[in-house]
Amino acid sequence: MQDDSRLQGTRRPGGRTARTRAAVFEAAMAELAENGYAGTRIEAVATRAGVALSTVYRRWGNLDGLIQDLVDEITVELPIPDTGTLEGDLTEVARIIVGLHRHPVHRPWLDALIMTAVRDPASRHTLTETIRVRIKRAATVVDRAVERAEIPAGTCADEAVRMLAAPFYYRIYISGEPIEEDLPERTAARVLAAIRAGTVRSGG
Amino acid sequence: MQDDSRLQGTRRPGGRTARTRAAVFEAAMAELAENGYAGTRIEAVATRAGVALSTVYRRWGNLDGLIQDLVDEITVELPIPDTGTLEGDLTEVARIIVGLHRHPVHRPWLDALIMTAVRDPASRHTLTETIRVRIKRAATVVDRAVERAEIPAGTCADEAVRMLAAPFYYRIYISGEPIEEDLPERTAARVLAAIRAGTVRSGG
Repeated sequence: MQDDSRLQGTRRPGGRTARTRAAVFEAAMAELAENGYAGTRIEAVATRAGVALSTVYRRWGNLDGLIQDLVDEITVELPIPDTGTLEGDLTEVARIIVGLHRHPVHRPWLDALIMTAVRDPASRHTLTETIRVRIKRAATVVDRAVERAEIPAGTCADEAVRMLAAPFYYRIYISGEPIEEDLPERTAARVLAAIRAGTVRSGG
Repeated sequence: MQDDSRLQGTRRPGGRTARTRAAVFEAAMAELAENGYAGTRIEAVATRAGVALSTVYRRWGNLDGLIQDLVDEITVELPIPDTGTLEGDLTEVARIIVGLHRHPVHRPWLDALIMTAVRDPASRHTLTETIRVRIKRAATVVDRAVERAEIPAGTCADEAVRMLAAPFYYRIYISGEPIEEDLPERTAARVLAAIRAGTVRSGG
């Protein structure tokens, strides 16, 4: 019981640097949630975090750099499922996607990133990089299934993840249709069927 | 050669009402392309079309009504492929989606509809209705394949279309990754594999 920071899920271990980082991230998420991407100022983030503006600039350069770092941290914290079967793992990955989009803190900045990318193509790199890192991370479950010979070698793991994720983003941001409770299982089954039929390979 | 309006693809047949409609639609698309959804005023559309503002109000009520009508007309004009096989038809539907998103006039208002829907959930109905009508229209090719016993009865046609369309919207609006030339064929093959495995049925 000596290290009581371990008892609080929201408190980060580490020294002053880690505390500054956590405070700035928390302030940035709150500002993004309240004001959206366009309305968020790096000055307001620093004030809210109780951190000198010069510290924020030195560390992240600008708001884009800060958001990229924040997004990377959240992505790295996303669990990689290991249920023992690819269908189980894909279902879990889909549930994680749904959970992120229902999360009161994560949803606003995802919306903000998407709106910014559509409005201003020059600033879309943050969203593209975020998604690229997430695809790579989730692709681990497909690579593992190839290793244990559950699915054919030559399956494109990134492409399988895109196929799994796309129907959720499509419903949330495009069609606006509700996400049925069993959609994660059903989408995982479809991706697996396509993989087994040998249709999920790298492009020519 | 009597009906020379048939020789010009951009000219619509019909009387004064049809000409007014065409002029207002053309003006609305130009305004949307230049100013986006948020910057488009119904007064500017009327002026540009050379049509009395009262006529526009009487006919469409407001800008949302006008855009909905415009979007419906474009959707109705989208061809429904009939190549003889479901794989061929799905590939064509996917190519039509790609074509719309590369079109210099259609892309801006699609972007505008999506941005507006993300920013303001209360106004997302126009986008949702647009997509709903498109899904229904494209679903015809799946229903036909069931009728000719190419695929199992009980296949959910709408769900097959969502599965086909989602990876394209995902790349365009979310991941920002390029659309490879053979993605329509490859996506069609994946959807067909999932249908044949019996995984594309209506939700429970």
